[in-house]
Amino acid sequence: MTGKVYLVGAGPGALDLLTLRAARLLAEADCVFHDALIHPDMLALAPHARLVSVGKRSGGPSTAQQVIDQQLVDSARHYQRIVRLKGGDPMLFGRAQEEIDALTAAGIEFEVVPGVTAASGAAAELQCPLTRRKVGRTLLLATPRVAKGAPDSEWVRAVLASDSAALYMAGDGLAWVAEQLMAGGADPETPTVVIEDATLPTQRSDAQTLADLRACPPRGHGGPRLLLIGSAVADVPRPARAPGPSLSPAS
Amino acid sequence: MTGKVYLVGAGPGALDLLTLRAARLLAEADCVFHDALIHPDMLALAPHARLVSVGKRSGGPSTAQQVIDQQLVDSARHYQRIVRLKGGDPMLFGRAQEEIDALTAAGIEFEVVPGVTAASGAAAELQCPLTRRKVGRTLLLATPRVAKGAPDSEWVRAVLASDSAALYMAGDGLAWVAEQLMAGGADPETPTVVIEDATLPTQRSDAQTLADLRACPPRGHGGPRLLLIGSAVADVPRPARAPGPSLSPAS
Repeated sequence: MTGKVYLVGAGPGALDLLTLRAARLLAEADCVFHDALIHPDMLALAPHARLVSVGKRSGGPSTAQQVIDQQLVDSARHYQRIVRLKGGDPMLFGRAQEEIDALTAAGIEFEVVPGVTAASGAAAELQCPLTRRKVGRTLLLATPRVAKGAPDSEWVRAVLASDSAALYMAGDGLAWVAEQLMAGGADPETPTVVIEDATLPTQRSDAQTLADLRACPPRGHGGPRLLLIGSAVADVPRPARAPGPSLSPAS
Repeated sequence: MTGKVYLVGAGPGALDLLTLRAARLLAEADCVFHDALIHPDMLALAPHARLVSVGKRSGGPSTAQQVIDQQLVDSARHYQRIVRLKGGDPMLFGRAQEEIDALTAAGIEFEVVPGVTAASGAAAELQCPLTRRKVGRTLLLATPRVAKGAPDSEWVRAVLASDSAALYMAGDGLAWVAEQLMAGGADPETPTVVIEDATLPTQRSDAQTLADLRACPPRGHGGPRLLLIGSAVADVPRPARAPGPSLSPAS
């Protein structure tokens, strides 16, 4: 017996931002391999499935990619319908290529089910369109996480050439990202928003200039953080910079 | 009475790539304003709603944006739950800013529901990840449609600075897009894929080099066309260039 593997996007976080197709596949699944960030309520949509956490939480323990690849291949010998559930969209920063390569090499049928990516989820919550007619017509999706030995110059150059950018997995190096961009020539007054746990009840966001982002704490509250940069977030309200002692009676 | 307006992403085309939240809002809607490209089966998910087509089909008749803005504002005086259903994700190339501005100015409550964007839908169908570890870490989302008088140089420069790009609403000017990119310095051998009606039964796609894209017919079959460029689509099989007469008995 050989099963079929579905690489499924779980969307940005909220349970009901899953697609109808993803929900159906979870309901029918015999086995689900999921990232650590997937909410238990979402896994409850797969009542018949064996659930296997394969980690991928920033900073915490995670399963090596090659082990995940092998687990997927092995699972197709034991189960009929296997779901590999990935946060956001599987084809954006999801390391889908390695899993596709492993499944193809083993002759296992697979299908990709797209999901709502984090940038779209964040934009909806912040009510700020990622593109705007005339003023912002290009959006770069990138990650500042580079493989060992790879140059940083490429993502910096691409961000600078675009009206706006969404940086994925930037969470634990925001100050460094700001430094890299400013060293590359970015205006220190460029607007930015850091959003953590976008679309979840625990969502929090901070708007600041690129210069002020350098003072951002290296870690948030443990959830995934997305960094939005540029004209798309120009209208997101920022707190007054370096406020003095408040004079209001309430303080 | 004042209703609430939901700007809802319909996803890339297939009915079941709608989110659970979007399906629920359609089921509850009193009134739905939809783009011309939304499939009738999707509108059937809103059995209680007045359906208003507001056009936006490339090359065909469409309602002016200001008229749509005014219709949304007016609808909130007559209906409780209004859905503005937009193809893909409302915050990407959806002209959401104009509608948000109009609703805000009129004091009407609104909410944005993100959707699966066309690039994710196309990547899933083509089974080609849009980012890959080490070899493709940046993806530009852009449109070559510029407002009158705006320079083309900006989107060209941004595409050239990124590993891969997805160009939205490029459908009726593919040859011109290829010319612009090559004039900007793009390698004529850069891989491209044009995909029309991605995720629908009518989907068709063509892989070719940027140089060959110049011979692409100006119009497809009427569906939305997305142009993918760069390393992300390097592995999508291309037909042999300039095939000679076939020797097979079937021809």
